[in-house]
Amino acid sequence: MPASPIRKLTPYADQAKREGKKVYHLNIGQPDIETPEGMLNAIKNIDFKVWAYTASEGTLTYRSKLAEYYNKLNYNISPENVLVTNGGSEAITIAMGACLDPGDEVIIPEPFYANYNGFACMSDLVVKPILSHIENGFALPPINEFEKLITDKTKAILICNPNNPTGYLYSREELEELKKLCLKYDLFLFSDEAYREFCYDGKEFISPMFLSGLDENVVVMDTVSKRYSACGARLGCLITKNKAVMAASLKFAQARLSPGMVAQIAGTAAVDTPDSYFQEVNKEYSERRDILVKSLNQIEGVYCPNPGGAFYVVAKFPIDNSDKFCQWMLEDFEYDNQTVMMAPATGFYSSAAAGTQEVRLAYVLNKEDLKNAMICLQKALEVYPGRVIN
Amino acid sequence: MPASPIRKLTPYADQAKREGKKVYHLNIGQPDIETPEGMLNAIKNIDFKVWAYTASEGTLTYRSKLAEYYNKLNYNISPENVLVTNGGSEAITIAMGACLDPGDEVIIPEPFYANYNGFACMSDLVVKPILSHIENGFALPPINEFEKLITDKTKAILICNPNNPTGYLYSREELEELKKLCLKYDLFLFSDEAYREFCYDGKEFISPMFLSGLDENVVVMDTVSKRYSACGARLGCLITKNKAVMAASLKFAQARLSPGMVAQIAGTAAVDTPDSYFQEVNKEYSERRDILVKSLNQIEGVYCPNPGGAFYVVAKFPIDNSDKFCQWMLEDFEYDNQTVMMAPATGFYSSAAAGTQEVRLAYVLNKEDLKNAMICLQKALEVYPGRVIN
Repeated sequence: MPASPIRKLTPYADQAKREGKKVYHLNIGQPDIETPEGMLNAIKNIDFKVWAYTASEGTLTYRSKLAEYYNKLNYNISPENVLVTNGGSEAITIAMGACLDPGDEVIIPEPFYANYNGFACMSDLVVKPILSHIENGFALPPINEFEKLITDKTKAILICNPNNPTGYLYSREELEELKKLCLKYDLFLFSDEAYREFCYDGKEFISPMFLSGLDENVVVMDTVSKRYSACGARLGCLITKNKAVMAASLKFAQARLSPGMVAQIAGTAAVDTPDSYFQEVNKEYSERRDILVKSLNQIEGVYCPNPGGAFYVVAKFPIDNSDKFCQWMLEDFEYDNQTVMMAPATGFYSSAAAGTQEVRLAYVLNKEDLKNAMICLQKALEVYPGRVIN
Repeated sequence: MPASPIRKLTPYADQAKREGKKVYHLNIGQPDIETPEGMLNAIKNIDFKVWAYTASEGTLTYRSKLAEYYNKLNYNISPENVLVTNGGSEAITIAMGACLDPGDEVIIPEPFYANYNGFACMSDLVVKPILSHIENGFALPPINEFEKLITDKTKAILICNPNNPTGYLYSREELEELKKLCLKYDLFLFSDEAYREFCYDGKEFISPMFLSGLDENVVVMDTVSKRYSACGARLGCLITKNKAVMAASLKFAQARLSPGMVAQIAGTAAVDTPDSYFQEVNKEYSERRDILVKSLNQIEGVYCPNPGGAFYVVAKFPIDNSDKFCQWMLEDFEYDNQTVMMAPATGFYSSAAAGTQEVRLAYVLNKEDLKNAMICLQKALEVYPGRVIN
């Protein structure tokens, strides 16, 4: 079981705080955005006497409400296509467990969300990474690169869209390419859509669920964590029109009995969150992204693509080693008694030596803090002993 | 992934209800007891603005409060020994994942909680069942029977105490025997203690955590589901003093990020539930057990041991096949337009043909309903076409 790559730095951050440094946390995906009031009120207004199990697949009330949410986005699903899970994490583990057998392989473009490794490990699966590149903004690697990796053990391709850690938003053309590949080799297409609501510059989010003729292949994993800034709800779902996959997934769900009851009550209320909430949140995030990307590219030797979604960027720094650099930022650097915590991109790559000059930054701080963090980072890169010229 | 044995009957129960029959549900572990008020009030009184992740191991507040609860019972633990999980289910999957590798074996006395099979399957483990017998109330099988099963792949023994499905409460002597065995063969002792609070007739609950010299071997899996009638909270925990196991477990916990935040707030309040709550609940359950066991043993050809804990019994009926019988009860039988839903014990055995005359009954209904259900069952056994003489 691999350790989470971000956790390694926690002791250094704790030590920095003990020393009185202000640490700007650009390392994690915990948004500072407030959870919608309607969702919190639903919690406060519970009126049951027995905090009981719900159906293993989730309450019909919540699944119906979710279908309403997805159908507004043209998913064309019914409650029977939805299985409620304990967070998006469980949706991923269930999808992997239901669709793959021990020893089977799943191809994932890298850099990728590091916990996919952990989930694959739990089901004794093999992750086959395929490199995407910062030079083209981490676009989908060429399909022939995927084909090179396919063996008779390959059962699925997993994409995260918009992407964590890169923020890349896959285009309809890229998804059509993946569709052809999945149909040709009879592969599942796992689509982690945790960041669906976070698309910028008027760009359109495309789910593989929108593509015709792919119903038997697509499994969507989703969560309310980012959508409603409700990470602590542990409320996700798995969506598929493939009945055999849903039946197998239900067995996993039945083994753990039930998702959370209060979370589902809150999740039901969340679907009625007014559009204005998302408009405000989107405006806030896209402004933050603009500040971050602009500031980063103004720093000498730094390159950062301008991603279309999520709330992360992966930037390239003029450094010898991102693990060392991120640790040095916490341990040995301060500017005006401040420093920045970031996630070395190495932890998001499976391929050895990939991402050694790259760092993931999450724009989950307010704009003022972000600006200060960028000043701090600029000063750090000026004096970092391991600075290199790219 | 094996299906849950109880689920198979659900369509028949649904059909019976559509036909207007009253169905007494003695098939499930969902108590009808009210959740403590303090726990529900804690939910209603939440005052956060961002429903955020908590630490992967659970909040320090909740773990400290849990340590307080366990230390009153002489577990002698600190918050560092506690990992908060999404239900007891996740405590079991994490313990299995952290302590065993794919292909490893875990010995479990049967009949056992059927979902252990599912959890083992998820981690690609092998369950080795060892028969316990209704004739001696499902006491621990002789230790030499365990020894016969031990191979170099055997890594753990799992007990559920008090037991689901049998209600059997293990004695200190039995646990001391298991201790010797675990030390001799260097095995983990997994102790599922979901029903700890439900011990009757003044009998004492003994955890393997109470035994000296076994700290490196014991992993306790627990949940608030039954203790506070809060099954829908999905709040459990794993307890161990073995630091390597805790470190490995934490990696699993980190992969899924966080347990539920609201559940932990409620769980913290739950620890202050007054003793009077448990006294009342215990009195209620032991009266129900008395009614159930007495009524069952008064039915001709039925034998039911008098278990010391939990809220289940496994009884032997004068029938050809418990799967057929339980289905027949729903499909073809009614007395005064009523029938009873029970769980065939076959689903709790791994060994072929075991439990074919046995049925699990959960006493989660009020006394009046229980009495009516027993009358109904008596009438059914009188006319069941597959009746046999034992």
